[in-house]
Amino acid sequence: MTDTIYTSSIPVFKQMLGGLAAILAKAEAHAAEKNIEPTALTQARLFPDMFPLRRQVQIACDFARGVSARLAGAEVPKYDDDEQTFAELRDLIARTLGFIDGLTPAQFAGSAQREIVTRPGTPKERRFDGQSYLLSYGLPQFFFHVTTAYALLRHNGIEIGKRDYMGQY
Amino acid sequence: MTDTIYTSSIPVFKQMLGGLAAILAKAEAHAAEKNIEPTALTQARLFPDMFPLRRQVQIACDFARGVSARLAGAEVPKYDDDEQTFAELRDLIARTLGFIDGLTPAQFAGSAQREIVTRPGTPKERRFDGQSYLLSYGLPQFFFHVTTAYALLRHNGIEIGKRDYMGQY
Repeated sequence: MTDTIYTSSIPVFKQMLGGLAAILAKAEAHAAEKNIEPTALTQARLFPDMFPLRRQVQIACDFARGVSARLAGAEVPKYDDDEQTFAELRDLIARTLGFIDGLTPAQFAGSAQREIVTRPGTPKERRFDGQSYLLSYGLPQFFFHVTTAYALLRHNGIEIGKRDYMGQY
Repeated sequence: MTDTIYTSSIPVFKQMLGGLAAILAKAEAHAAEKNIEPTALTQARLFPDMFPLRRQVQIACDFARGVSARLAGAEVPKYDDDEQTFAELRDLIARTLGFIDGLTPAQFAGSAQREIVTRPGTPKERRFDGQSYLLSYGLPQFFFHVTTAYALLRHNGIEIGKRDYMGQY
């Protein structure tokens, strides 16, 4: 039987990142069709001190990679987070999917009990076992940024629906 | 060992509904302090054809109850969804927490393999096992509405942060 932590993380990230890519593709097409400057969307925010769309996508990808890597006991890859355009954000999602696809179920063996420390050495340091790290920290963070990206585009009039957000399942 | 589906669902719903209750409390206090008509927030939307705040909270609670009940093999409780005020939404969250708290880990035994059918008898009918129902359907739907409620209040200037959304974990 495949490890439960593997099946509770990798397929979820893949499903939702696929949905996010589809949402961004619709936003890009909308901008082209309506002669909207694409940065009006990639830099859009729901409030001045919130992150813009491009950063929401970057952070969602960052959680997908970081949570997967930590659960797999693999090194967390460093990305530059310098994406600005829709094409670059699409490529970021593709590279993120490539990374998590490269992790094998075998790497997750015993990961439910693996100790994971977030922000080590800082006052915000927290220790989790793998299961609580995924469910009480990783997934809530990941879904937060995916949904905020969706909400931000929806607020800007992009014709997307919850079905797009949900991806293929 | 407690069933994995229990520990992957009930504590997550409790954590996030606790966060949602705290966010709504801050919004209510903000409205009182600034002399804002509370319905300006409870009826606020991010776009005209999106659901308002009150409905986002109702749907989040609905998924928390429905997903938990189906996984536990319990009857899905029927609620009226007639909440309008912050006090009524707060009470809804409390009743939802009460319902899911009443489900026992023993009811979740074998739930990873339990067949769950959504929208039975309709063209949208889908069959899941319990694990994929929770992870590829239930949690993405639940997080969608909790995060949208947050985004909506954030967009309206309520001083909340991701820490509030994350709840106690």
